[in-house]
Amino acid sequence: MKNIAVLVSGGGTNLQALIDAQRSGEIKNGVISLVISSKAGVYALRRAEDAGIKTLVLPRSEYETQAGFDNDLLAALKAHYIDLVVLAGFLTILGDSVIAEYRNRIINVHPSLIPAFCGKGFYGLKVHEAALSRGVKLTGATVHLVNEEPDGGPILLQRSVEVREDDTPEALQKRVMRECEHVLLPLAVSKFCEDKIRVDGNIAALLP
Amino acid sequence: MKNIAVLVSGGGTNLQALIDAQRSGEIKNGVISLVISSKAGVYALRRAEDAGIKTLVLPRSEYETQAGFDNDLLAALKAHYIDLVVLAGFLTILGDSVIAEYRNRIINVHPSLIPAFCGKGFYGLKVHEAALSRGVKLTGATVHLVNEEPDGGPILLQRSVEVREDDTPEALQKRVMRECEHVLLPLAVSKFCEDKIRVDGNIAALLP
Repeated sequence: MKNIAVLVSGGGTNLQALIDAQRSGEIKNGVISLVISSKAGVYALRRAEDAGIKTLVLPRSEYETQAGFDNDLLAALKAHYIDLVVLAGFLTILGDSVIAEYRNRIINVHPSLIPAFCGKGFYGLKVHEAALSRGVKLTGATVHLVNEEPDGGPILLQRSVEVREDDTPEALQKRVMRECEHVLLPLAVSKFCEDKIRVDGNIAALLP
Repeated sequence: MKNIAVLVSGGGTNLQALIDAQRSGEIKNGVISLVISSKAGVYALRRAEDAGIKTLVLPRSEYETQAGFDNDLLAALKAHYIDLVVLAGFLTILGDSVIAEYRNRIINVHPSLIPAFCGKGFYGLKVHEAALSRGVKLTGATVHLVNEEPDGGPILLQRSVEVREDDTPEALQKRVMRECEHVLLPLAVSKFCEDKIRVDGNIAALLP
């Protein structure tokens, strides 16, 4: 059984999708044993508490250095014997020490079809604003392993949705979350926990 | 009834998809009245002749300047009262004079989900090689109007296909053609001929 830490910064709808997947038995060989928030008071913490999951707040804004934050984060992950770190709307940069220590064991979800609309500056609503400005007819979400390059790690899963003519960034964000992120993230976590992910360089494959 | 010119440089499978769509009645208000190839002897010319469509070869390599090629191309388009220019595997750059004269009346198909794997240097198999190198799980094709920026014009239609673990660039190219390009291109041409395309800046919408 693998120990999963979910890192959050806000409302936590992706965390909720993972909690629901755990309850329904979709995540067979893993348990969400820790939720870490980079901000105090966010609703994701409430969701974790309601599900009986231990929570921890590491308020990024109160750390003077990236290294200080990374040290405390790594200490918490190790103290809880975490095998898999899931970034679920986590708006804080992870330092290279964390990424190196958890190489190919950190999963992120990004609200576009990488390599479109990703990398530095593309987060949250900005991604959907950019997609609408470009006039794309398809967008979606990508679940990937995290490496040192923003949104540059091995891709695990992608799923598309159609853009509607009357879409606002908010409406598109909601549909991408519901139809893509909340479907893909539990599936990727499940595959990880069952050792069904094979990585070769920057290419990842999910085994059946 | 709109006059359509299809510009080709090779095998002409996208041309064939358009010929088939015309035969089946999918393209209601248009007729392919001219096929122009930038190379002599290509199989696309044979397909056109077999369908009873007039052909013209403008051998790009024998033109010393872009302007010379553009002039002859524009003259041919005008002589045949062409309303719509379709780039169907056309591997030659169009000069700005042609683009300006046929503003929002040139349709191109690109074998990726723009803005992924597009722009300078991304053509033919190179697009699919890049997609496989990045390890994307979804790719597809985009039909768009042509402006002065390579693959930068208003997007009309996009359609995705899954990348398979054992895909080669050739296998992926074939699937993108069959499942995306050959579906999207006739649909876009049909919509154009029925005046069902609305363009606002760099955003295009297809009316029902």
